[in-house]
Amino acid sequence: MAASSEKYDIVIVGAGPVGLLLSVCLARWGYKIKNIDNREVPTLTGRADGIQPRSLHLLRNMGLKRQVMAHQPAKVYEVAFWDPQSGGKGIHRTGNWVACPRFIDARYPYTTTLHQGLIERVFIDDLHKNGADVQRPWTITGFRNDGQDELYPIEVNLKHTQTDEMEIVRAKYLFSGEGARSFIRDQLGVKIRHKDPISHVWGVMDGVVRTDFPDVKMKCTIHSDHGSIMIIPRENNMVRLYIQIASSTDNDFNPRKQATPEEVQASAKKILKPYYIEWDRPKAGQGMNTAFHDALNLAWKIHHVEAGFATRSILQSYESERKHIAEELLDFDAKYAALFSRRIPSAGKMGAASEDNTDGEANEFVKVFKSSQEFTSGYGISYGPNEFNWSSDHPAQSHLFNPKGNAVRIGRIMPPANVTRVVDANEVQLEQEIPLNGSFRIFLFAGSPSETQRAVADFATNLQKKRSFYSSFERKDIAGVSYHERHNPHSDFFTICTTFASPRDSVDISKMLPSILARYSDHVYADDVWDPRVPDVRAAAHAKMGLDAEKGGLVIVRPDGHVGCVVSLVEGSGTVDALNGYFGAFVSKSVGRSKPQAQL
Amino acid sequence: MAASSEKYDIVIVGAGPVGLLLSVCLARWGYKIKNIDNREVPTLTGRADGIQPRSLHLLRNMGLKRQVMAHQPAKVYEVAFWDPQSGGKGIHRTGNWVACPRFIDARYPYTTTLHQGLIERVFIDDLHKNGADVQRPWTITGFRNDGQDELYPIEVNLKHTQTDEMEIVRAKYLFSGEGARSFIRDQLGVKIRHKDPISHVWGVMDGVVRTDFPDVKMKCTIHSDHGSIMIIPRENNMVRLYIQIASSTDNDFNPRKQATPEEVQASAKKILKPYYIEWDRPKAGQGMNTAFHDALNLAWKIHHVEAGFATRSILQSYESERKHIAEELLDFDAKYAALFSRRIPSAGKMGAASEDNTDGEANEFVKVFKSSQEFTSGYGISYGPNEFNWSSDHPAQSHLFNPKGNAVRIGRIMPPANVTRVVDANEVQLEQEIPLNGSFRIFLFAGSPSETQRAVADFATNLQKKRSFYSSFERKDIAGVSYHERHNPHSDFFTICTTFASPRDSVDISKMLPSILARYSDHVYADDVWDPRVPDVRAAAHAKMGLDAEKGGLVIVRPDGHVGCVVSLVEGSGTVDALNGYFGAFVSKSVGRSKPQAQL
Repeated sequence: MAASSEKYDIVIVGAGPVGLLLSVCLARWGYKIKNIDNREVPTLTGRADGIQPRSLHLLRNMGLKRQVMAHQPAKVYEVAFWDPQSGGKGIHRTGNWVACPRFIDARYPYTTTLHQGLIERVFIDDLHKNGADVQRPWTITGFRNDGQDELYPIEVNLKHTQTDEMEIVRAKYLFSGEGARSFIRDQLGVKIRHKDPISHVWGVMDGVVRTDFPDVKMKCTIHSDHGSIMIIPRENNMVRLYIQIASSTDNDFNPRKQATPEEVQASAKKILKPYYIEWDRPKAGQGMNTAFHDALNLAWKIHHVEAGFATRSILQSYESERKHIAEELLDFDAKYAALFSRRIPSAGKMGAASEDNTDGEANEFVKVFKSSQEFTSGYGISYGPNEFNWSSDHPAQSHLFNPKGNAVRIGRIMPPANVTRVVDANEVQLEQEIPLNGSFRIFLFAGSPSETQRAVADFATNLQKKRSFYSSFERKDIAGVSYHERHNPHSDFFTICTTFASPRDSVDISKMLPSILARYSDHVYADDVWDPRVPDVRAAAHAKMGLDAEKGGLVIVRPDGHVGCVVSLVEGSGTVDALNGYFGAFVSKSVGRSKPQAQL
Repeated sequence: MAASSEKYDIVIVGAGPVGLLLSVCLARWGYKIKNIDNREVPTLTGRADGIQPRSLHLLRNMGLKRQVMAHQPAKVYEVAFWDPQSGGKGIHRTGNWVACPRFIDARYPYTTTLHQGLIERVFIDDLHKNGADVQRPWTITGFRNDGQDELYPIEVNLKHTQTDEMEIVRAKYLFSGEGARSFIRDQLGVKIRHKDPISHVWGVMDGVVRTDFPDVKMKCTIHSDHGSIMIIPRENNMVRLYIQIASSTDNDFNPRKQATPEEVQASAKKILKPYYIEWDRPKAGQGMNTAFHDALNLAWKIHHVEAGFATRSILQSYESERKHIAEELLDFDAKYAALFSRRIPSAGKMGAASEDNTDGEANEFVKVFKSSQEFTSGYGISYGPNEFNWSSDHPAQSHLFNPKGNAVRIGRIMPPANVTRVVDANEVQLEQEIPLNGSFRIFLFAGSPSETQRAVADFATNLQKKRSFYSSFERKDIAGVSYHERHNPHSDFFTICTTFASPRDSVDISKMLPSILARYSDHVYADDVWDPRVPDVRAAAHAKMGLDAEKGGLVIVRPDGHVGCVVSLVEGSGTVDALNGYFGAFVSKSVGRSKPQAQL
């Protein structure tokens, strides 16, 4: 009977990175989740375990970076390229390159490598703090929309993989984080398109090694006369080797070929000559970063629908935004794997590659590697125009969008910037000041107080007008909100941060801000911290946002950290009108319609 | 019977900061400890809980900073000064000042405030990892050197404070970390000298408050017509208030006066006018930082005696070094408390104090505050000349000590400097690269390889000569040392770090370093990281040590991070001869005596 089944907001099948991150977000935001996994314990052997710079930035925003770093992961700052020497003399280094070049403004310009199982445990510990857990070893055996319950339309059948115990639950959402083999996808008839037929088979082996190969603690791509190998340093003196063990050009090519640890070791020894390598402990064994951002993209959209903020149609943008990224990743993987697998003729020394030295005889593999670094760092993710990512096609039309000189790229994450928090004089990372709380982030850059005093007052006045996005989504429990609530005193829909282009000393919150903005007193900042990327400006954060240090402006950031729109800060109602138009494109209430659109 | 008593290297009475840090160090270094405490649980209410910048630096070196920061302590970056306005209009801000000014080269330029109980738990968790624990609630009832056991001379009598269960143990050392009321001190007839009679009584109260006082998240010193108050922000929206509740100038002065939370609140309300303050939750409630360094100073000296490295006489330097610091602290406290307690007449605005603005009408309290900041940050600790801290009176005489231009102040901690670790290209904090492992730290700054090639080779050759400090303290288990041992492959007496004044790319460890130095491959660095404190030099770390970027030099750092001596790097045996002379002053073997001293 449907009536007796336990009800969940969401059933999440699979507790790998995507399932876990989705569970963590939704459990934190107050949803009732059921996350099952058919494995008895979290991931034991390796698997995807390189955390991209942007992913680490996200983990910081979730308050989980410290827990990850407590495992003392390896940090990859550079990549070394090794190629065959002529005359059968084995390999030699032909170049090296920073893992995350300076043109990417990354807070943590390195890749962090750590056993996926440890990363999963960080998420699972966080679930425990919110009273949730992963149910193991359970699997899904069926699901259907049976018309029995309007609020919880899906009946889901679950089974213990060992005892065959059965459980029937109802849910609003059913999410598949099952990976390559998905029961849910099969049932729904969703096909996986393989981008290219498999043409190379790689063996992966983690181990603790002894070697005189000098770059064993760096990421290395090695081409030799005996095949190719990639080295990834890991925590606890471990090293991961990816070794090519079969190719479609082999006479006996078998795409399911397996290799024993001994075979992989023997290959590695040949490839690494003239260096020796021995194993203390070997253990036989990409997509995690993408999984993080898939889960995050979906989590906040489900939240905004279920919280009553947004129309259900926004869920469609999950597929359109993330599928594009997935396709880019597949294209890149295919191209990269093919190039890496290709044999490289013995080459002369490329010269010590450095950021300033892009000339020289770099081969095509190195060129592709370098040109894709923004993408592989995770900072290249850019969502195209839609209801969230303003463009000239967006329903909201105002000359105040995208003020002249604006540098913030819509659809990408907001640039990082250090500022001084006014109440306690702490130097903080502005983009990290709002934790991943599921809210839109309204960054008011207030320029020079003398210049913007009136505009800031008008902004506050218009926010409070009836039918503004601000008034429309006021918390129902607003009278009982704690004095100490820092992020969402008015609404879970948004959080407001105000940054003045003035020294901290000169900012007097109670005098310079209307009370509704002063209420966010922990989110008032002074843009007075010097930044080496814009060394000559007075207000670095304003400059990095492409905003005038006198006039300021607003940057609206989606709950996942990507920029939605940028609006000028002006006297009168124009700024709030523009924001009402922006939010009006996807929220569940008609906002700002008390004013005729023509006035924009 | 002595023979049946359990034996310990050390019995530590008291598990406050000093007892715990001593236990943690000695447990980590392999000693058998017994740490008792007469309280049932760690500190519950407040107490000393401001972690100085230097102490946080030390906790980082112990690998415990992350655990402390996980509690999200408050960080004090600035201090605000408030004084009475004329005409009974209440208080106003007369200035503010950075908590740790830029002239102090602190890695973490702020004071971290956190409940002492949480800090104690971080230490206790670390004890657990090393199989040790605090035994509660137990007290000491007697001890004597009874001549029964040469190795474990002291018999110690312990008692459970509730069940009266008794335990008799034997120990090499007995340490009192009992605080103000010490059984051990009483038994030994050690008197406490009170620096000054108590002339002011302070009430301390932690609480969660609501207030419109704008600096409630800053450290504030407030003088009003109604008395003085000090505000210290804490973790979790808590605020600590120190309020003057009695003074020896009062008619009814009672140095044991207590105040109820209601009385303290009433005083605070009067003092803070014209601002309001209300309490959500109040809880009635310096020395911790000093305790840390007391414990550390003693820990490594006990270790060096017990490990057979140093003569027992070095233990005397614990008292001479730390007593001097304690006296400085007492003097400072007395002066500071007296000045703070003194009523200040209504004053005009001092002008926004800033680091560059030392003029103005600062009162004496503010002057003392500013002039003592190096001391209160913990970076002012300077140990005077003795066997560890080289001076011209030291037994080791050589013109190579203290090379010209040297900036490293002997007796103080080594300046911080960022460098690039060669094996993995990670940017690291050089002074943190050797964890607190109880070893002397030999920092070889190798200058330009082309210039120092011969000197580095000669250094290695002379290190390996019979009777050098290096050869004399070789590990007994050297044949079985793990390939992966990073810090002490040769000896627990020292760890060696080599830093070249060259870009990382150009450092080839196997070609540029003799094998005994190359063995520390994880401790080879490139001095190629730009430092804003010495923006115009080629090799910032060399410059911060006051060493020539061509010729290099050696900085010898004690196990507690304080500089012992600085020596030129020269061709021939001079450098090692000088070091043999330096270490010869306190080690347990005669080192370097195969060469006549005259040759120096």
